[in-house]
Amino acid sequence: MSSFVVALDVGGTSMKGGLVSESGAVLLSERCPTPRAEGPEAVVAAIREFISHLADSGDGIPAGVGLAVPGLVSEDTAVYAANLGWRDVPASDFTSLDVPVMLGHDVRTGGLAESVLGAGRGVPDFLFLPIGTGIAGAMIVHGQPYGGSSGWGGEIGHIPVFPDGEQCACGQFGCLETYASAASVGRRYSLRAGIEGVRAEQVVSSDDPLAVEVWDEAVEALSLALATYTLLLDPSMIVLGGGLAEAGPALFDPVRTRLVKRLAFRDAPPLLPAALGVDAGMLGAALLGWRAAGREDLGPGWVMDVRSEPLVS
Amino acid sequence: MSSFVVALDVGGTSMKGGLVSESGAVLLSERCPTPRAEGPEAVVAAIREFISHLADSGDGIPAGVGLAVPGLVSEDTAVYAANLGWRDVPASDFTSLDVPVMLGHDVRTGGLAESVLGAGRGVPDFLFLPIGTGIAGAMIVHGQPYGGSSGWGGEIGHIPVFPDGEQCACGQFGCLETYASAASVGRRYSLRAGIEGVRAEQVVSSDDPLAVEVWDEAVEALSLALATYTLLLDPSMIVLGGGLAEAGPALFDPVRTRLVKRLAFRDAPPLLPAALGVDAGMLGAALLGWRAAGREDLGPGWVMDVRSEPLVS
Repeated sequence: MSSFVVALDVGGTSMKGGLVSESGAVLLSERCPTPRAEGPEAVVAAIREFISHLADSGDGIPAGVGLAVPGLVSEDTAVYAANLGWRDVPASDFTSLDVPVMLGHDVRTGGLAESVLGAGRGVPDFLFLPIGTGIAGAMIVHGQPYGGSSGWGGEIGHIPVFPDGEQCACGQFGCLETYASAASVGRRYSLRAGIEGVRAEQVVSSDDPLAVEVWDEAVEALSLALATYTLLLDPSMIVLGGGLAEAGPALFDPVRTRLVKRLAFRDAPPLLPAALGVDAGMLGAALLGWRAAGREDLGPGWVMDVRSEPLVS
Repeated sequence: MSSFVVALDVGGTSMKGGLVSESGAVLLSERCPTPRAEGPEAVVAAIREFISHLADSGDGIPAGVGLAVPGLVSEDTAVYAANLGWRDVPASDFTSLDVPVMLGHDVRTGGLAESVLGAGRGVPDFLFLPIGTGIAGAMIVHGQPYGGSSGWGGEIGHIPVFPDGEQCACGQFGCLETYASAASVGRRYSLRAGIEGVRAEQVVSSDDPLAVEVWDEAVEALSLALATYTLLLDPSMIVLGGGLAEAGPALFDPVRTRLVKRLAFRDAPPLLPAALGVDAGMLGAALLGWRAAGREDLGPGWVMDVRSEPLVS
């Protein structure tokens, strides 16, 4: 029997692929660009080639393939992905190999990895919130990522934190994402200061009053969204990931303080940094690949080489 | 074998009790006051007596007892109820009968009833939102009420819809409940108009500009909270109940319009009126009583005499 799966995390600009063994060893890890500009079919073809290339590097035939993809997705179909132009692409289209394939939603697959292998090990109910170019959450409910009635759940980046706030690219007003994503923090400061192309990490570490103001608004938006999530879903913890979480205490400390302040009759859940970093999606895809191969049991016993110290005390 | 259970819905001012048969027939339904002013133990004693009284009216010994109670609750313990002064009251304290007892959270037990017997029959993922003196929701997830990691979930009445808004009785600012509960609608109009004791239903049907303003703010608060719930939990529908839902189209129409307007990239779930009215808690408690008796299968086959026409088209 084969002792590895092919795992792929498909992003809008690049794909991260790997081979992961039965014991959780990452045998190989590679990146390749996503040819989004060439159209929906070119991306599917590129995925097919990348999977074959990865599989060829393994010793034998893979036991399964797992893919984390954006948009609306079921285990066997990429139903809809606006940014890749997909509509109803069956899982079998993604590989020419004759092995079982399982698809997962990108953020929820990362949440699955944090749940089984990372910061949420052994915690049945929590929120995994990666803050990057955009913001979406993976709600872990009874130990599994929950996508709602139709798979459109977890859109915490678009809840209206400031009802009369700025218009978001999505068309709504006052969305969390338009204040607190890494892209928004950079964009809002650049606009206000009249300097082009400033990145979020520069804003966070700056003492320019305009930078302090923009960062303060991001922190306030995040605290409101996390207070709302806490009151509704009562998570036992909140795991922050993505590029912005690299800000460490500059993010965690003020968000924690304001979250506590927003909650009067209940405790705030602890805020923790994600453990798997940029590998979360690929590792979650590996879990899906093993599930496709009938090995739902794998994962909990794996020992990962993850960040062992929290970013903050 | 006994063919009925005792069901009790314990509220802050009154208790609704009943006997419910194996086929879902409500054999008896009675109300009695909750002696809250006499202290936590007096309430427990009153429940014990009420249950015995109800059981005596039945033909034989009940198969089980189900209770819907406020606060933090597990199946076998009323862990904490601020308004009744309870702390860790075991289920067995509530009855002197030697029959199995199961407890449930009041709102979630009502949600269970709407899910199995009412507006949510056959719908695995939805929100049941009774709007009365206060506001709390029952989140139905994969066909079961979900209370979060510790049973404190569903507090949609206290999410901050207006971040810089009025202070709520809970201590937080801008809570949904402080704008949109029946009590708040009455209170806010009374305060603004300088007239004491106006009830919500009078405000809803008035064309006094101050009443229109207060109602408009309630509708806006509700739309924001429901947009947030929809984006996070992606329910397939939202069931509104409680006293305020009796306002019918005056509530449903403007909330629906604004909810649709708040959502740019996804559809709004349908808004439906609850089907079981004030009986939801007692009927849910009956389901719990039957579950205590080992009859998890009961409920779906029951034909209830419920509102068959929606309040609105």
